[in-house]
Amino acid sequence: MKLASLKGPTRDGTLAVVNRDLTRAVKAGAVAPTMQHALEHWDSLAPKLADLAESLEAGDERHAFDFRAALAHGEVDAPLPRAYEWLDGSAYLSHVERVRRARNDTVPESYQHDPLMYQGGAGRMMGARDPIRVLSEDWGVDLEGEVGAIVGDLAMGATSAQAAKAVRLVTLINDLSFRRLIPAELAKGFGFVNGKGANALAPVAITPDELGDAWKDGRIHLPLVSYVNGVELGHPNAGTDATFGFFELIAHAAKTRELAAGTLVGTGTISNHDKTVGYACLMEARLVEQVENGEATTPFLKFGDTVKIDMLDRHGASIFGAIEQKVERYTR
Amino acid sequence: MKLASLKGPTRDGTLAVVNRDLTRAVKAGAVAPTMQHALEHWDSLAPKLADLAESLEAGDERHAFDFRAALAHGEVDAPLPRAYEWLDGSAYLSHVERVRRARNDTVPESYQHDPLMYQGGAGRMMGARDPIRVLSEDWGVDLEGEVGAIVGDLAMGATSAQAAKAVRLVTLINDLSFRRLIPAELAKGFGFVNGKGANALAPVAITPDELGDAWKDGRIHLPLVSYVNGVELGHPNAGTDATFGFFELIAHAAKTRELAAGTLVGTGTISNHDKTVGYACLMEARLVEQVENGEATTPFLKFGDTVKIDMLDRHGASIFGAIEQKVERYTR
Repeated sequence: MKLASLKGPTRDGTLAVVNRDLTRAVKAGAVAPTMQHALEHWDSLAPKLADLAESLEAGDERHAFDFRAALAHGEVDAPLPRAYEWLDGSAYLSHVERVRRARNDTVPESYQHDPLMYQGGAGRMMGARDPIRVLSEDWGVDLEGEVGAIVGDLAMGATSAQAAKAVRLVTLINDLSFRRLIPAELAKGFGFVNGKGANALAPVAITPDELGDAWKDGRIHLPLVSYVNGVELGHPNAGTDATFGFFELIAHAAKTRELAAGTLVGTGTISNHDKTVGYACLMEARLVEQVENGEATTPFLKFGDTVKIDMLDRHGASIFGAIEQKVERYTR
Repeated sequence: MKLASLKGPTRDGTLAVVNRDLTRAVKAGAVAPTMQHALEHWDSLAPKLADLAESLEAGDERHAFDFRAALAHGEVDAPLPRAYEWLDGSAYLSHVERVRRARNDTVPESYQHDPLMYQGGAGRMMGARDPIRVLSEDWGVDLEGEVGAIVGDLAMGATSAQAAKAVRLVTLINDLSFRRLIPAELAKGFGFVNGKGANALAPVAITPDELGDAWKDGRIHLPLVSYVNGVELGHPNAGTDATFGFFELIAHAAKTRELAAGTLVGTGTISNHDKTVGYACLMEARLVEQVENGEATTPFLKFGDTVKIDMLDRHGASIFGAIEQKVERYTR
């Protein structure tokens, strides 16, 4: 099933079930008022949400509405409008390799079995059509196209097999990054903090079964396509070159803590060793330019620029709906 | 006023108003069901909560109950049972200095004006009497006694003067740390992640006016007293040697993001240059022993050990109630 949240009346939004082709939706208030509530009572509520999804698919929901119109009118929030924990891995070592090669460094062997992961803020996520609002273009504003899993309650020290059973939903993420701020933040040794912005999520989050055989080993084996100002930046495959899948990333996050229902875990920017497929963030294009041409020429995002992040099924239909955002100057 | 949360019926607990001497409390459900709800509607609800506090103080609340008994019976949750964002500074450079001196390093000059800060997890905080549950004593389990501010909505790029107006409540925090896991985590460059556990908060969070003239420049000018197994570990003053106060720390956290109501910002472990006052974490005792005696002898926490963190007013009364926890082996 596919789930979304409409904006309001509270900061947690209003849960809605969306049909497979993302054209129709129905509010799920009779089952669960919010996505967070559904996640906290998943075992009892998920079957009822699935019933609603089936009835919607069959055209039997008389209060169904036009989901595309709701999206276009800015009424759709992130499927999970805010999350208590946001733990982002760095599963694609080609991304890490490119960062390190540009500073004449190599990837430590330990990165093959001990995931890189940081904790970020998710107290207010952006809906898929919400603008990216920043105070300055000088921050080096960059998209990071990645895949995220929303998990249920999980015990401390859970194995990856246990983590697999805790995956409730998957979605796309734009993990906004401020490239010119990150080096100074990381140099202090305590993580990204000021170097990252709010995340945008795709219009819907889906149960993994919706992916069919593209969901395997905790990885989504499909390309993630990113565009900047309408020009394709790349289409790396999220199932290729992923050193860690969601099950390992989630187990890593749970090593010394319980994860609470509604925790968002990310893969890190999708990246493939084959650079002919392009990238899911501007920085990688710039790093390759720097190594090959001695100079990075691809610019970071400026006010007015647009980004689009999407994932299509094998018939060319958007699975999650696209993240489509415009960069704007932040005003209070 | 002083606010607490009782456990249940939801994960956000039930908001209660507590009297000044922490003996009596009354549920605040008629004003706000939860602390998070109160924080999101603070301007309209805080005056009503203040009325309730006044009526409780006057003995006019017939549904008031014994707060000490509720605490003793494990019915009291953290005042804010879960927070969307937890940003912890490192305001006391004597703490940083001791860490770095032990590895023959100095404190960079930039630390005097650019706060160290990391983002941690607060999806499930511990109540003040909840056990500290860990899988292994080998993690190097340590308390970190600090002061925290719970803030309201704040714009991106807010000044410290604007941050000052966003401080809603202050409380004590035990920021659980796993000393033997931290070096490997920090070496990866992305922050603490597995190196930190859940936070415990004091029984109540209070509006800063409750502190009288001990609240000045965004700092609480009172000693924080910590005990391990009943023996005092130290009583460093939270108003002494704080390079940054809450206003600067909150403004730093908001540099590139909006802060949402309910964000928790910490000072980092309270630490004074004068080592005769002792410490608020075991690691500092160990670092000083290592430098002075060539060997750290103070052990980290073991199963069965108890910790207590408290702050007394000038008449010797506990302001927030004490954090009193026992270390236990985690079982699912």
